[in-house]
Amino acid sequence: MEWKIIGIIAAVCTTSGFIPQIIRGLRTKRLDDVSPVMCILLIFGLSLWLSYGIHIDDMIIIVANACGVVFSITIITLRFKYMRQR
Amino acid sequence: MEWKIIGIIAAVCTTSGFIPQIIRGLRTKRLDDVSPVMCILLIFGLSLWLSYGIHIDDMIIIVANACGVVFSITIITLRFKYMRQR
Repeated sequence: MEWKIIGIIAAVCTTSGFIPQIIRGLRTKRLDDVSPVMCILLIFGLSLWLSYGIHIDDMIIIVANACGVVFSITIITLRFKYMRQR
Repeated sequence: MEWKIIGIIAAVCTTSGFIPQIIRGLRTKRLDDVSPVMCILLIFGLSLWLSYGIHIDDMIIIVANACGVVFSITIITLRFKYMRQR
């Protein structure tokens, strides 16, 4: 049971980690130093984790990775939007 | 069995995603736009995943998250090193 809680805390940390990156980007209007290749690999990898979560019907894996995919897409979209605007 | 392979591909993508970020940093000597709060949350979250992997004795989770922790520490270290040098 306590390991399930550790899993939830781990999932919350790794998924919510993208939020300060998005906030930083919105504030500075600059995400040039963020690697777009990293974003693409994350979007692809997290989508696979999401499909795995759906397969084993694990709500923690589904929610964490669905949020991760949305956040990664947001970061790469903001990055290119801000670069185009300069 | 095929889901184990999907899990391995997902783990490889999400973990190796940090590598282009490190390469980009080494090339541009600049990681200012990368959120340090994101790095700290990732280091903490991936360490919990690592301990979970050790608990359930799953080599994929152990290796993927051990690499993720090392890569995240590398990114935040490079970030502050390059900021100090300017």
